[in-house]
Amino acid sequence: MINVAVNGYGVIGKRVADAAAAQPDMQVVGVADTATDYRVALARHHGYDLYGSTEEAVAEMAAAGLDPGGGLSDLLAAADVVVDTTPKGIGAANKTVYEAAGVKAVFQGGEPHELTGRSFVAQANYREAIGQRFVRVVPCNTTATVRVLNAFETRGHLRRARLTLIRRATDPWESHLGGMINTLLPEPHIPSHQGPDALTVLPGLDLVTIAASGPFNLAHVHFAAIETPTPMTRGDVLELLEQAPRIALIRADQGVAAPNSVLEITRDLGRPRGDLWEVALFEDTLTVQDNEVFCSYIVHNESIVVPENIDAIRALAGVEPDAATSIARTDTALGIRSRLP
Amino acid sequence: MINVAVNGYGVIGKRVADAAAAQPDMQVVGVADTATDYRVALARHHGYDLYGSTEEAVAEMAAAGLDPGGGLSDLLAAADVVVDTTPKGIGAANKTVYEAAGVKAVFQGGEPHELTGRSFVAQANYREAIGQRFVRVVPCNTTATVRVLNAFETRGHLRRARLTLIRRATDPWESHLGGMINTLLPEPHIPSHQGPDALTVLPGLDLVTIAASGPFNLAHVHFAAIETPTPMTRGDVLELLEQAPRIALIRADQGVAAPNSVLEITRDLGRPRGDLWEVALFEDTLTVQDNEVFCSYIVHNESIVVPENIDAIRALAGVEPDAATSIARTDTALGIRSRLP
Repeated sequence: MINVAVNGYGVIGKRVADAAAAQPDMQVVGVADTATDYRVALARHHGYDLYGSTEEAVAEMAAAGLDPGGGLSDLLAAADVVVDTTPKGIGAANKTVYEAAGVKAVFQGGEPHELTGRSFVAQANYREAIGQRFVRVVPCNTTATVRVLNAFETRGHLRRARLTLIRRATDPWESHLGGMINTLLPEPHIPSHQGPDALTVLPGLDLVTIAASGPFNLAHVHFAAIETPTPMTRGDVLELLEQAPRIALIRADQGVAAPNSVLEITRDLGRPRGDLWEVALFEDTLTVQDNEVFCSYIVHNESIVVPENIDAIRALAGVEPDAATSIARTDTALGIRSRLP
Repeated sequence: MINVAVNGYGVIGKRVADAAAAQPDMQVVGVADTATDYRVALARHHGYDLYGSTEEAVAEMAAAGLDPGGGLSDLLAAADVVVDTTPKGIGAANKTVYEAAGVKAVFQGGEPHELTGRSFVAQANYREAIGQRFVRVVPCNTTATVRVLNAFETRGHLRRARLTLIRRATDPWESHLGGMINTLLPEPHIPSHQGPDALTVLPGLDLVTIAASGPFNLAHVHFAAIETPTPMTRGDVLELLEQAPRIALIRADQGVAAPNSVLEITRDLGRPRGDLWEVALFEDTLTVQDNEVFCSYIVHNESIVVPENIDAIRALAGVEPDAATSIARTDTALGIRSRLP
């Protein structure tokens, strides 16, 4: 069993904890946070031992009756791998703490590639992370980009890609904090950061991303123009996408027309929090014209990186040398599908 | 003076009437509609003689105290050119009426290209419409697409273009009728219709458009990847766009970040209804990489076709043989700019 700690019980942390707990080869030894509000109370509801990420947090949790098991060092002492899901920038400061504790660590995409020198998407570079001490799981949009483009690249079918990304304005749990209404906000800089970030996983990609934010909070939507070295048939591309891990086909002509409808499916499937771990790719939009492929897909920012975190834990722990085996184990435990529904 | 009639006093019709009335070489001899509600009452407020588009409408207008000047045939008798801004599909049926009345007619993009065999964007093909009987002004997104791509094409700088179009869900004046909230709706078919439609104006374009609708009502936003035959400098592209008619540069770094902010400028400029007749192109987003150009721009669906309608009237009337002269006259009368603000 791999002993997993989660530091930062937020959007990603609470999901990674549940996904790790669902794996047959992992157990969650505890979660740490600095808050004492409803989020942390819900960690107790899920049965996780609770720790304070800082000394102050330990005291505040105790004062709030949350019965913390100790501080971060206590949690790390019980862990083989810690998943750092603290807010952007804090993970970098934690790295020295993890090093001192002799614990391997998975960081999130809010941290720069340089923090670990190793950015991770399971199906692209699992092997390179095996037995390493640190790895960075790339952000949601980059994860989706790499999953889709790697499906082409790994078979020699990628020449270049031009993507337009329409991002959700904010997350559901904090949408009351204000934000965009009734407009669309293009990012003033092209390429947006997701393009260069994808190159930390797939070096040498010819990729340009253009991004904007829209007045919704459910998910991101990507519009892809992918060029292949030679012409492909639509059937070939469909097969390639069907066989790629963590890409699930959806069909607008069967009523799955937009993020809201695909998320109704994941709710009906009984998934935790209605999560959508797959890239949900509209089969209807898949269009092949000579050596160009066009399609649209949905990226659930809250959960798409969760399976990557699980594989990253397994890679760092060094217990599973085969990427496909780790991916299959993760996906079976979570219930990941190649079609929705 | 060109005697202009407008049949259909809706989103486009009311704007075309005002724009025609603002031209030194045109006068509006009347507007026709079938409604008797606030929209038609406002036509009287603007001083336009009112006609019923149908016999029933004449009777209903009379009963509503709107004092119609007669039916459509009475209006057409006074007109050199009628601008048909009736709902999609009705224009086609009206064509025979206009033919019988010996009146030239400008149709809108809701009608198919085949209705007139002549689709129109002033800067691309004004000359071909001179003295003709019928012309079709293409829809908002197609108009913007042609304006931007023609700026490249006309100088031999266009190889191909791949555009992503995020459309507004509905118009402000009918947004209470329901519609999309909190999601983004990709069109299931690629290419979307705007691509082929642009080819009715610029035949032979290598163009693919991908479209989606978003939960906002202000304007459309396009994200463009344009390939040029040979590498260009950013300065060259900027100059090309600055010199093209009806493209106005905006700068996010000066606070003009999104449709809502550019429309605050057009309101402050005192434009009728706060209209944005130009393609509003983000200078910040303009990125040139070898022989590729990337940028984003805003398309005000309610008003962008208005100047095209004015030039189409002038072309059909056959009084002005030079496209640039007609465009300049239209733009001066309206106050069209090459930068906003």
